[in-house]
Amino acid sequence: MLTVAACQVPARLGTGDTTELVSAVREAAARGARLVVLPELAVCGYAFADAAEARAAAEPLDGPTVALLRDLSAELGCVLVAGLAERGADGAVHNSAVLVEAGRLRASYRKVHLWGREPELFRAGHEPPPVVETAVGRVALMICYDLEFPEWVRIAAQAGAEVVAVPANWPWLARPDGERPLEVLRAQAAAGAYRVHVVVADRCGPERGVDWIGGSVVCAATGYLLAGPATATGATAARTVLTAELDPAAARDKSLGPHNDALADRRPALYGEPG
Amino acid sequence: MLTVAACQVPARLGTGDTTELVSAVREAAARGARLVVLPELAVCGYAFADAAEARAAAEPLDGPTVALLRDLSAELGCVLVAGLAERGADGAVHNSAVLVEAGRLRASYRKVHLWGREPELFRAGHEPPPVVETAVGRVALMICYDLEFPEWVRIAAQAGAEVVAVPANWPWLARPDGERPLEVLRAQAAAGAYRVHVVVADRCGPERGVDWIGGSVVCAATGYLLAGPATATGATAARTVLTAELDPAAARDKSLGPHNDALADRRPALYGEPG
Repeated sequence: MLTVAACQVPARLGTGDTTELVSAVREAAARGARLVVLPELAVCGYAFADAAEARAAAEPLDGPTVALLRDLSAELGCVLVAGLAERGADGAVHNSAVLVEAGRLRASYRKVHLWGREPELFRAGHEPPPVVETAVGRVALMICYDLEFPEWVRIAAQAGAEVVAVPANWPWLARPDGERPLEVLRAQAAAGAYRVHVVVADRCGPERGVDWIGGSVVCAATGYLLAGPATATGATAARTVLTAELDPAAARDKSLGPHNDALADRRPALYGEPG
Repeated sequence: MLTVAACQVPARLGTGDTTELVSAVREAAARGARLVVLPELAVCGYAFADAAEARAAAEPLDGPTVALLRDLSAELGCVLVAGLAERGADGAVHNSAVLVEAGRLRASYRKVHLWGREPELFRAGHEPPPVVETAVGRVALMICYDLEFPEWVRIAAQAGAEVVAVPANWPWLARPDGERPLEVLRAQAAAGAYRVHVVVADRCGPERGVDWIGGSVVCAATGYLLAGPATATGATAARTVLTAELDPAAARDKSLGPHNDALADRRPALYGEPG
């Protein structure tokens, strides 16, 4: 069994302050987590005023955020996944996620499905979610709104992902009283549809009037929750470190009872997919 | 606004008894429903011992079940959707659904994604879900396990469906205490992903040791529930007629806030779909 953690932390827009983030990672590791997921744009924050501000917050993949994550992964023996504003070699700014293990950058991913005003700030990626063979299992990376496209989770599952790690900044939206956020239901549906574990680390703490669901979850490959949602909204929302135990290898079994299979039961030719 | 109903009724395997079904449809109509959805294999039941028994229960589309539905639709002024075992002109038996309006059979559909032992009993369909322009809106048909394939709901939405009507027989499966059934979450996720209303009519009352979730729901195009789940299991589970009001035209608006669109935000070329 693997202990995973979703660290729901505030960002301090424009400050580069990593105190809460580092503290959350240390707490996760102290609680036994060997895969630790942090939010989208974890250090720099989300609510940029314009493209110039996003560009100023962006850094290359050998910049300070990845260096910090590398150091923490080496010191604590954890696989870390986190989002950052990436300044690419081409000069474009991307909403990216990285996976860091044993002091090394193992993979990066540029968000493909952009939300809200993001197209004004970031250039969309066009590569599928990477699936990384790590010491704790095969981990796929995607970011926030990407998770709402079932195709993206299916592609990761077909590529062998056991755990889908999802840095997110889920903006708060009204919902009926007592209902679990739709974003969480969709994470559960995707996990159950493709029999992969899903770990979502959401943001907490409002930025420039934008608040967050605070919906971090650990979702088993059955589709049912192992931890969360850690709903916490408003200015007083405090850091939350969710942990749960899961069996990565369980995601290799796509059977649904004795007669069905989550992937083999698909009828791709009828969906217009090439055979 | 349109009042819809999901009639969760028991079937009396092998009896052809339609008393409960007719009574439920009359109750739905009396409560103002103009679109009434009935379960999969609504009259004949589900738990067939073998192919011979399924074949004996099957009937053509001009058989007694469709005749009954036609009469009810004419008398009550409702659009009716129900499942039946269809004996096709080719002699094969199919797990089918029909849509009946104003005394006429408007559309039929053969279940494409077969569950459990169904491949021993039924020949799978290979046509997409029909979308029928009715007096109450554009209604798509699919059956039970079909709904768990997001592609199928997406295809219906892209063809203009406003309401997806889903006769179902959801077998009861263990789930964590207090959790909503995954089948319901997946219905909600699909509704929200493609901004279509979803009406699921499940079965109640065990057959030959097979029990059902009794999970009928009316789900808005937002992904949130308007009625249900009508969870009722065991031998004492009684008929339930769920009703809810929804706005079919709301499903024509695929926007998600000012910047996003549930269908246009897809990146089909990256999913391997032909351009």
